[in-house]
Amino acid sequence: MDKNDNGPFDAQHLAGVYKAIFGRRDVRGQFTPKPITDEVLSRVLYAAHHAPSVGFVQPWDFVVIQSDDVKTQIHQEFVKANEQAQNLFEGEKRTLYSSLKLQGILEAPINLCITCDRQRGGPVVLGKTSIPTMDLYSSVCAVQNFWLAARAEGLGVGWVSILDEQAMKRILGLPEHVVPIAYLCVGYVSEFYDQPELATKGWATRKPLAELVSFDQYGQHQTVDESSLIRQIEQDKVHYR
Amino acid sequence: MDKNDNGPFDAQHLAGVYKAIFGRRDVRGQFTPKPITDEVLSRVLYAAHHAPSVGFVQPWDFVVIQSDDVKTQIHQEFVKANEQAQNLFEGEKRTLYSSLKLQGILEAPINLCITCDRQRGGPVVLGKTSIPTMDLYSSVCAVQNFWLAARAEGLGVGWVSILDEQAMKRILGLPEHVVPIAYLCVGYVSEFYDQPELATKGWATRKPLAELVSFDQYGQHQTVDESSLIRQIEQDKVHYR
Repeated sequence: MDKNDNGPFDAQHLAGVYKAIFGRRDVRGQFTPKPITDEVLSRVLYAAHHAPSVGFVQPWDFVVIQSDDVKTQIHQEFVKANEQAQNLFEGEKRTLYSSLKLQGILEAPINLCITCDRQRGGPVVLGKTSIPTMDLYSSVCAVQNFWLAARAEGLGVGWVSILDEQAMKRILGLPEHVVPIAYLCVGYVSEFYDQPELATKGWATRKPLAELVSFDQYGQHQTVDESSLIRQIEQDKVHYR
Repeated sequence: MDKNDNGPFDAQHLAGVYKAIFGRRDVRGQFTPKPITDEVLSRVLYAAHHAPSVGFVQPWDFVVIQSDDVKTQIHQEFVKANEQAQNLFEGEKRTLYSSLKLQGILEAPINLCITCDRQRGGPVVLGKTSIPTMDLYSSVCAVQNFWLAARAEGLGVGWVSILDEQAMKRILGLPEHVVPIAYLCVGYVSEFYDQPELATKGWATRKPLAELVSFDQYGQHQTVDESSLIRQIEQDKVHYR
């Protein structure tokens, strides 16, 4: 990239970025068995690897899971954790919860665990001296890079978080100091939904952005009369829903 | 978006996504005072707001900081935390550390704190029942969405993590249950560097991706002779450095 390329992207490149961001979905039920080529998988892993990281320590590892045996063990842990989870909800919420498909572990051709090595970079890491969780956050950035690149490649990704961390560590052989950040199901899909599944299924709704923006102090909101930014956000609302 | 648009993006859109991912930088020293229009700021905030979130709780808030007084208070906290941090390094590492510019708090026209409300969604949140840190991870995904959209808009972003969390909470008026996830400096830049600053300044180097990829079990690496994926990764290496 040209060192002095400091302006905004041209229209097509910019549109691509927003298409990935607004069209990204958490996929659970639309995986197809179509194999992922090494070329595509390599690119999306490189995308993950180019996430920002505290002190440039790159704390992530990528465990690519193709073995049916490993998938089955993880799936059993999901079933166990999901039964426990279900019992935490009551009444209609429990009925709705039970009806949701929350993972595609066995259907997705590839599962991927992105981890964080808490010891990477040694005991003193630039940028981690005040906030010791910064390395965990770096690995999450790698997850999001992966997810957006995958969307652009036509790959669906589903983050399965209803899994016991210790069980994941045991099944994947993670050392004590390595934290499983995200267990992802990855594959081509029959379709990408237009809206998040939890929205269409009536679990939760998208919050109005204006309510989440405050100025200089937390909770110091402004109205359309007071703030041209809030006026702009309200105008954009229809477009971004 | 068309519901059946399930293939890869066309070449220009795909290139845009990778351009943002590979060209994103942690900016500390190249901010210009050029103001950010409400239109652009609204778009990048919408991008952040469309991050994935556990149980679709959208735990983030966005505190937009334009006040010189707030910036100055945060900057003072940075100076304090950075002095403490510096003393943790020894010898040449300390000299190099001291020479690095690690924030652009006062120069960037906008500072932005992205937070995580630990109580959002109530006591039981879908997907957070096994891994209680999932909501923190959701807010980090919002940070990365923001960062990539900003890059595409020509905006530089720098994540300042050398700050005491309690001090940030006090200065920004965050309630006890709201965690400051990322304190970001945001603005147009004179240039985007070609490589991460910590790489060019000799602090750390990019790890070879092949060393970070294992198969089915953590640490179960494969060689170019054993794995066509690793072969592909090695081929791509030159391109992605």
